[in-house]
Amino acid sequence: MLPTIDWQGDVIVMVDQRKLPAEEIYVRCHTAQEVARAIRTMVIRGAPAIGVAAAMGIALGLRRSTAKGTRQFAVEFQKICEMMGATRPTAVNLFWAIARMKRAFSEGALAGESPEELAGRLEREARAIHDEDVANCRSMGGFGAEVLPDGARVLTHCNAGALATAGYGSALGVIRAAVEQGKQIAVFADETRPFLQGARLTAWELVRDGINTTVITESMAGPLMRAGEIDVVIVGADRIAANGDTANKIGTYTVAVLAHEHKLPFYVAAPLSTIDLATPDGDHIPIEERDQREITHLRTWRLTPVGAKTRNPAFDVTPHRYIAGIITERGIFTPPYSESLPRAFDTIAPASAPPALPPSRRFGGTNRRGEPSI
Amino acid sequence: MLPTIDWQGDVIVMVDQRKLPAEEIYVRCHTAQEVARAIRTMVIRGAPAIGVAAAMGIALGLRRSTAKGTRQFAVEFQKICEMMGATRPTAVNLFWAIARMKRAFSEGALAGESPEELAGRLEREARAIHDEDVANCRSMGGFGAEVLPDGARVLTHCNAGALATAGYGSALGVIRAAVEQGKQIAVFADETRPFLQGARLTAWELVRDGINTTVITESMAGPLMRAGEIDVVIVGADRIAANGDTANKIGTYTVAVLAHEHKLPFYVAAPLSTIDLATPDGDHIPIEERDQREITHLRTWRLTPVGAKTRNPAFDVTPHRYIAGIITERGIFTPPYSESLPRAFDTIAPASAPPALPPSRRFGGTNRRGEPSI
Repeated sequence: MLPTIDWQGDVIVMVDQRKLPAEEIYVRCHTAQEVARAIRTMVIRGAPAIGVAAAMGIALGLRRSTAKGTRQFAVEFQKICEMMGATRPTAVNLFWAIARMKRAFSEGALAGESPEELAGRLEREARAIHDEDVANCRSMGGFGAEVLPDGARVLTHCNAGALATAGYGSALGVIRAAVEQGKQIAVFADETRPFLQGARLTAWELVRDGINTTVITESMAGPLMRAGEIDVVIVGADRIAANGDTANKIGTYTVAVLAHEHKLPFYVAAPLSTIDLATPDGDHIPIEERDQREITHLRTWRLTPVGAKTRNPAFDVTPHRYIAGIITERGIFTPPYSESLPRAFDTIAPASAPPALPPSRRFGGTNRRGEPSI
Repeated sequence: MLPTIDWQGDVIVMVDQRKLPAEEIYVRCHTAQEVARAIRTMVIRGAPAIGVAAAMGIALGLRRSTAKGTRQFAVEFQKICEMMGATRPTAVNLFWAIARMKRAFSEGALAGESPEELAGRLEREARAIHDEDVANCRSMGGFGAEVLPDGARVLTHCNAGALATAGYGSALGVIRAAVEQGKQIAVFADETRPFLQGARLTAWELVRDGINTTVITESMAGPLMRAGEIDVVIVGADRIAANGDTANKIGTYTVAVLAHEHKLPFYVAAPLSTIDLATPDGDHIPIEERDQREITHLRTWRLTPVGAKTRNPAFDVTPHRYIAGIITERGIFTPPYSESLPRAFDTIAPASAPPALPPSRRFGGTNRRGEPSI
């Protein structure tokens, strides 16, 4: 299991994802501010991972609180939550994790807990979010592996792996699960400009696991599809709207259009914490525009001439009609998503544990026979 | 006019396109071998430009010949032609230029010319190829500008500019001509991995000309189209088959699929020397696979982990059905290309000069009314 993020005593340690694979350097965060900075500067990235990091950062910040009473503690808590919420706008897991920390706080406050007790509760909640994320990835893998037949050649974009989660990965978790089932899987990893998550991170973690991996530029996916060298596409997600429209790393939309043109299934793998029923559709997902320097420079090498403008949206939205299925820890959801996705949450709501899930569980909108509608 | 390639006395001088825009360095070739190496290593690139370079390199090599007689001279000529033909396989302009030099050689040999006279003839032919290429670009611009309305936002891929030709450019020549007509044109330049011709070369030459230029990663073209921020696509070509299938820089096919999905016109601008009627369709175009290091490294920075495989096809093929029109120095040709493209050459064949072309000349297969069929 890769060391995406973990506690080391009083410190949160993350592998610096800006440096991999050339250098394996660990960043040690001693304060909530340092964790927020690590999220903003992409030391850690990937929607589930930044949700986990935000929760852990909040817990870290409050653990160091010197608040005299609950009221002062609550003010500090609010400030740290606001700081975390301002790091990156697109991945909803960040806001989901903050909301979950707030709920934990409220429960403790209602129970009359002291600042120390509240801090302990927040840390337990953050640890739970971390551990559940790994478990969710394993579960996604279990459900998702069925979409990868033996011998499948899978295209993935960006990094939706162990490094994008607390461990195991969403899209790459599905690939790992298929490999663990003994299937021969070949992965094509889009290098994913400008941050090169595919070339640097996806390839790094798959090669470590001994999985057959070929790095390509994004421009090569289409010709490979046309040549019949790709069978299926799986990507992660940063926010899935109520109608299934999915924000993910810039370039995902292009991959989806290409898959559509070549009649290949395009799957999204993401935990329920990525599904945002409060966002009706993709047009309502805020898209982060990042620093122009990511386009104009590679390290210190200036690529573009002075005087040329640049654009740098970090995400794009794939309309739901391109998506064959959304693989979650509760099964695979298929179109129409506005009907199927809310049911993912129905089964969580009851206080009693949900019934054990069958090995394969697909939730379609109209197609209930357990086959994807596309 | 940009200094893509030129004679300086006994030397052929080219701007080093691997170094732009950070450094403006000129490579001086003293021998045909050095010219061949410059083509192979992409000091000079772009289909028309490497055709011009090959012709000039052949002339340079023979100018230095110490052959005692015509027979020995012919052997040297053949060897140099073979060396030039082995530099890069996809762009047909290279083979077109070599064939033209061979025709000039044959004419001289039939006329009983001495080695010195033959060398002079070859140099005149190379100079003619160079000068005609610039004239062809200007002519393409004149015909092509009509597809760019005032205010058009144009996406281009790779560099089909002054640097890819002897001057002015094919796709960028069309843009330049529209700007010279007083139209407001905004250009989006795909950065074009892995060699970054768009970020480095297209942006450099357009900014020098004061043309509004925005560099984007290839992954951003689709979302911009979806947002209605692009009106038309124009690219160059490395080889156009008899049915209109077009090989061009890797990534062009993806742009064409995206344009198709968003109902935007996709044009190819290329001189007749890029049209290869002897190649029936795109499946018969050889696609160069280049050094893996272009994918694994950026300068000295290793991007991909050891153990990850890579692919590096330098070109892809866009099927003719995605192409709204092929802009040449003899007008704009429209589908069906297997009918329209051969007519481009009909008008050249007669010994008498062809009639003056009207300002706008479109050659459609079935649509003869002067409008593009798409």
